[in-house]
Order: sequence, then C-alpha cells, then structure tokens
Amino acid sequence: MQILTTAAGLQAYTEQARQAGQRVGLVPTMGALHDGHLQLVQAARSECDEVIASIFVNPTQFNNAEDFRLYPRVPEADAALLIPAGCTALFVPSVAEMYPQPTVLRFDFGALERVMEGAHRPGHFNGVATVVSKLFHMARPHRAYFGQKDWQQVAVIRQLVADLSFDLEILACPTIREADGLAMSSRNRRLDPASRAAAPLLHKVLAAAAEQVRQGVPPAQVRAEAEAALTREPLVTPEYFEVADAQTLQPLEAYVAGRAVVLCLAAHLGGVRLIDNVVVEA
Amino acid sequence: MQILTTAAGLQAYTEQARQAGQRVGLVPTMGALHDGHLQLVQAARSECDEVIASIFVNPTQFNNAEDFRLYPRVPEADAALLIPAGCTALFVPSVAEMYPQPTVLRFDFGALERVMEGAHRPGHFNGVATVVSKLFHMARPHRAYFGQKDWQQVAVIRQLVADLSFDLEILACPTIREADGLAMSSRNRRLDPASRAAAPLLHKVLAAAAEQVRQGVPPAQVRAEAEAALTREPLVTPEYFEVADAQTLQPLEAYVAGRAVVLCLAAHLGGVRLIDNVVVEA
Repeated sequence: MQILTTAAGLQAYTEQARQAGQRVGLVPTMGALHDGHLQLVQAARSECDEVIASIFVNPTQFNNAEDFRLYPRVPEADAALLIPAGCTALFVPSVAEMYPQPTVLRFDFGALERVMEGAHRPGHFNGVATVVSKLFHMARPHRAYFGQKDWQQVAVIRQLVADLSFDLEILACPTIREADGLAMSSRNRRLDPASRAAAPLLHKVLAAAAEQVRQGVPPAQVRAEAEAALTREPLVTPEYFEVADAQTLQPLEAYVAGRAVVLCLAAHLGGVRLIDNVVVEA
Repeated sequence: MQILTTAAGLQAYTEQARQAGQRVGLVPTMGALHDGHLQLVQAARSECDEVIASIFVNPTQFNNAEDFRLYPRVPEADAALLIPAGCTALFVPSVAEMYPQPTVLRFDFGALERVMEGAHRPGHFNGVATVVSKLFHMARPHRAYFGQKDWQQVAVIRQLVADLSFDLEILACPTIREADGLAMSSRNRRLDPASRAAAPLLHKVLAAAAEQVRQGVPPAQVRAEAEAALTREPLVTPEYFEVADAQTLQPLEAYVAGRAVVLCLAAHLGGVRLIDNVVVEA
C-alpha cells in the first residue's frame, strides 16, 4: 500500500492508473477506522483495480471545535487495517495541503440541508461538499464509497455530483452494527462504559419506530413515542428524531405511497454525539 | 474538427486524449464568436495538443430572460471560424444535456460577487460557476482559457478552482478591441448603428480614468468624472463604474501601494448591455 501525502502525488498516482486503463475506487474517511469503513474498502476492492482510501479529519465540516479536537486519530492502526482489506493507496494529507488558502466559496443545498444534520450543525455540509469536491479532483475516482449511516451526507453528495456533473458514481453501503445494534462509528471509542451500555437504545428505538412506520402509525406519533423512549434513558439526550422522506429528507406529516421513509436521530451520550438511521422501503 | 453533443461523448474523447498523454485545452464560450474568442483558441492551440471549444448559451447565468432569448446564436458561422483557428473538438450540448435535472446547489462567492456584475445580475456567478464546473468535469482540461473582458468572472472562476482544488490551470487572455477601442463582445452584433457609433465612449472613458489613476487622482473623483462623461452621451445609460482592487474586486476609497487597480463599467446602449474594464498595474 502506497502512502501519499500531497495532492500532486495523488493526482499523478491516479492519472497513471487511469492511463493504464485501471478502475479507481475512492473511500474517503476521517480515520479511526472500524468495520463500517473496511466494508467500503472491500466493496471498492471487489469493483475496482485501484482502491484509494483517504484519512483526513476535515476541520471545515466540524461546527464544534471540541468535537474536532477530540475526534480519534490513530493513523498507524488505520494503516494496519487497510492493507489486508485491499487498499492499494492511502492518502493522508495535512490541513495545509488540503487548504493552502482560506476557502471563500460556500455551497448551499437548500431544503436538503435545512433539516437534521444540516440544521443542527451549521456549515457542516458546506465543509463536507468542499472536502469531497477536493478529494474527487485529487483522486479522480470512477467510484466513491460512502456509508449509509450518514444518510443525509450521502444525499448531499449525490446532489453535488449530479449538479456539477462529476464524472463518477456514488456507492452507498449499509450501516454496519455491533452485535447489540449500535451503529459502528469512530466516535464510539469516546463513549465511557455507562454510555456505551446505554447506546444500543438508539438503534432499538429506530427499529421500533421502523416497525410502527410499516404498520402505518402516523409520523407525528412515531416521532413522539421515539422521543419519549429516548428521553426516558437518563444517559441519553436526544437532539432530534425525524421521520422523513428518504430521498428529499423533508419531515413527513403523512406517508406517501411508493416513497421510502428514513428515520434519523442524533443524540448525546456522556458528551459524545452519535447519529443513526433506518430506512423503511416503500 | 470533431463535433460532440453529449457529456459522455466529450468525457470519452478527453479521457482517450489524456490516456495518449496529450495536453487538453478548453475554451468555454457562448458562441457568436469574435476575435477575442479566436485568440483564446489560438493560445490554447499553441500550448495544448487538443483544443476543445464549447458553445453553450447557459440559461442559468442569465438573470434577464430577454437577454437570454436575444443572445446571438450562429453555430454554423462559429464552426467555420473554429477550424482554421486550430480547434480540434467542438462541444455543443443541448440545455437538457447540461441540465438533465434541476440544479439544487447554489454557490456563494462572498464579497467577490457582492459587487459589480454579481450585484447587478443576481444569480449570475452561481450560474457561471455551475456551468464551468460541469464543463471542467466533462472536458477535464489541463488548461482552460477565459477572456479578461470578463474580469470578475475570471476572478470567480480562479476562486472556484482554488477552493475546490480543480486539477487545472486558468489562463486569462487580454481583451481584444475593435480599431475604435470597443471591446469585442458577442452582444456588439445587437447594437443599432447609432449605438455602435456611441459605443467606443466606454473604452475612451476607461482609458481616461486609467490615466487619472496613474496620476493619483482619488478613486471617488475618478468615479464621478467617469460617470459624468458616460451620462453626457444620451445614447449611453451607465449601470455602474467602479474603481476597485484588481484582485479582491472591492471598491477603493484610496489606492494601496503595490496593488493593481481595475476599472470596470457596465452600460446600456439601445437595449444592449455591455461591460468593459481596464487594469492599471501597481
């Protein structure tokens, strides 16, 4: 596995791969890798000749400086996981390499970012779209792989790709969970034992809500009961629980035949903010 | 010269060129070509193996529907000019090809677009940045060529390229003028004879103002005298005249040692809106 630290180095690497007719897959990450990331690498491995993983804790997508400071960084352990997963190149740029000058332009994704993560983390999706655009221009992948745990992020990136005609495909892979249902996340490492023990409640509430959606329980009631269930656990402070259209991400007042529903939540446990979601197909 | 009408066709064309190790130049235009455009093609020809010109009257950068409707469209004449200039491929997409679905994302370039064209043509630079991003993703040039007549547009595109780390270089070529000083523009074709006769005043006023800047006449006085000179001509209705920092485009209250100044104007002549500018080097 080749280690690359500069944009020019990555561009040269991928240009050579494309000249040789190889298919390039990109797995953008912020490191502290878990099985969810490795599944993305394996998916890329099965479909591409070159698999480039990037590890970059992107400051511009953190609205909370403390969250950025505390984000886990374990580069050696990450590299050791990527090699057996089939990664052929690892891109680990510095902040100065990714942002040689302050960024002026800002993206606005309209209604897509007026809800959930966009509403609760001002500037988050601008930072995501900026860094993803940069990574796409540096790695020039045929395919880029993202986890469905960040459902709204995937929707925003799909919109970015469509609206700017990026010449690549976005692949979204299912959320990988611990045995007790907790969605894998780099931030799970920061949970204290009591919070970790309480954390499976998030998926339990999502699963129960999904069952209610399947049974046709109205969105407002699903939302209220889920919020109540989260609030009953003293170690969990819910930030939002939303019943939304899976494509537009807009909150639902009523179900629409033929349209998938996504249930999304964010909650704080002992100072750590976690998100999760479940999709109910139409 | 190959004619391409689809994004996929252009992407395949340019991918093949790059695989063959060729340098690709892109000259984005809205057609109705004049010597200013042809100079861009010739510059690309002298520096690149492949020269791709695009002709696309981009609806999303017109804030005025009538201006869009009346924008000159002469595709056959354009093609006849491009071949001898050294263009190797012409990309002429339909609106549906460029915008297969409505665009959701919007760009904001901050202070850079709060002045002059950005202030007077709401949404203009969002449309420019969107279409230019699309063309860059479709043509994947090593270099893209723009005319300095659209000074603010060049500044916005340079910011776009820097902020999203597009892997290409922007080349700006000097404004080409008629013998009487009028900056070449596709919109000049729409001038009636009286307006055409009055139009050289724009450059005359810019040249006089540039001389004043060189002599250290304060920006406010330069601005006032230029506006007065434009207003004295009954066939000319000035929209703005600005004395600005050439890089930041912000209006100047006073000159700053070592920084270039740009003088920019927009004016209406017989229903046709023209812009022009002159740069005074530091």
